[in-house]
Amino acid sequence: MNYTQYFHHCLETRNSFLCTGIDPDVDNIPAAFTKDVQGIYEFVRVIIQATAELSAAYKFNLAFFERWGWRGWQVLEKLVSEVPGDILLLADAKRGDIGNSSKFYARALLQELPFRSATVSPYLGSDSIIPFIEDENKGAFVLCVTSNPSGRELQEHGANKPLYIRTAELVQGLNQHKNLGLVIGATKPEQLLDVRQRFPSLPFLIPGVGSQGGGIETAVEVCRKNGLGLINVSRGILYPTEGKFPDNVRKSAENYHQLFSIKDDK
Amino acid sequence: MNYTQYFHHCLETRNSFLCTGIDPDVDNIPAAFTKDVQGIYEFVRVIIQATAELSAAYKFNLAFFERWGWRGWQVLEKLVSEVPGDILLLADAKRGDIGNSSKFYARALLQELPFRSATVSPYLGSDSIIPFIEDENKGAFVLCVTSNPSGRELQEHGANKPLYIRTAELVQGLNQHKNLGLVIGATKPEQLLDVRQRFPSLPFLIPGVGSQGGGIETAVEVCRKNGLGLINVSRGILYPTEGKFPDNVRKSAENYHQLFSIKDDK
Repeated sequence: MNYTQYFHHCLETRNSFLCTGIDPDVDNIPAAFTKDVQGIYEFVRVIIQATAELSAAYKFNLAFFERWGWRGWQVLEKLVSEVPGDILLLADAKRGDIGNSSKFYARALLQELPFRSATVSPYLGSDSIIPFIEDENKGAFVLCVTSNPSGRELQEHGANKPLYIRTAELVQGLNQHKNLGLVIGATKPEQLLDVRQRFPSLPFLIPGVGSQGGGIETAVEVCRKNGLGLINVSRGILYPTEGKFPDNVRKSAENYHQLFSIKDDK
Repeated sequence: MNYTQYFHHCLETRNSFLCTGIDPDVDNIPAAFTKDVQGIYEFVRVIIQATAELSAAYKFNLAFFERWGWRGWQVLEKLVSEVPGDILLLADAKRGDIGNSSKFYARALLQELPFRSATVSPYLGSDSIIPFIEDENKGAFVLCVTSNPSGRELQEHGANKPLYIRTAELVQGLNQHKNLGLVIGATKPEQLLDVRQRFPSLPFLIPGVGSQGGGIETAVEVCRKNGLGLINVSRGILYPTEGKFPDNVRKSAENYHQLFSIKDDK
């Protein structure tokens, strides 16, 4: 299966656009786990057991592993090798470089590690994106409109055309293998709808739902319009404010799984 | 010493803006080294022995280590702990994220590892830069005009003002601790001179000299104008085309060390 076929397969198996974000932070994990890299490992294993049936994808945030140095990378490697099949493994690494550096970043995530897709930052242009999409069995999501307030400082630059539209044009032009998508935050519903309308063929990875307060309805709507898409929830699933762990994690994932269903059940 | 004082100290000790770029690639290292992560470790140790007296800074390119997974990170950790004092350690990681992710990327490089500075990608705005510069003893260089041809795809976006000028304005506005600088490629001499004139207070990290063909004179001129600056050479020092290893490495570094001298000896 090429990337697009596999992406479809993962979504249809779960009947949901739910992507569970793996952002393990020792300041937030239950007290039963040690506050070190071993505690992180054991915590994420339980999270995966509780959510694997409900998640079309796992988005591993590399910052939360690199913060532990090489031991964090070692734990990341163990964890991704343990994820059950039929779940799209996405490296949220936001890498972006040129030449051999770009090739090696892609290789680290998509060949040395079993990730199927990765997030890429576009500031350096096509050179930073191409190594991630040369293999039609792998893919990437390029940062377009991010969920943070300061995202607009550069992303809205341009009197006649905001930069994020230029970014989307660049991505569309590179998408020969149909394995590229855009990262657009749920906190920016107007841009979500605008980019959806202008670039109907590009799948979205949508963070910012839940703890960050982004609107769920618009996120689901734009994913349904394309057919491919992922709506990410990290803290809202990993750290529920009530209930007994890990039942509360499962319950929270069930809730988002239902909210993000592929078919409109209304 | 805060970051600026330390930066000055490293430059003055060597009387040169030379930054040696550590981009170790098994396809290019001498046959005496094994083509694995251990060979990389031993190769870089010899490079450091041959160039430490001549380099004001070492720029470690993280892609070339991550490509080996956690073992690459382990070797990186060993190598940076062995670099002699009085040399500015720079992590060329081009990270860029928001919130806790941004904090953890900064922590990984500037606290867990002994890097004094790092390269940061600005697409996500201030949120991606601030965690790297909150400690006035540490610093960062933000991507502005990159040396690759496709850099202009987004960096020159904007009818009235190119994005790279907006990036430089953003960086200048965040530079309360005087620990920020810009990455501008030597392959773009017009932009180097333009940004130098508009933003006289920001130090530059200048890649693209040597193998990438960028002009040396302009690079040296804009560094001398500010007083702080780094001109990076990676392949031109690590992989000389002639001579016996490692004497040829030393000789090449001596050449660049002289070309990049802080004071004009003419």
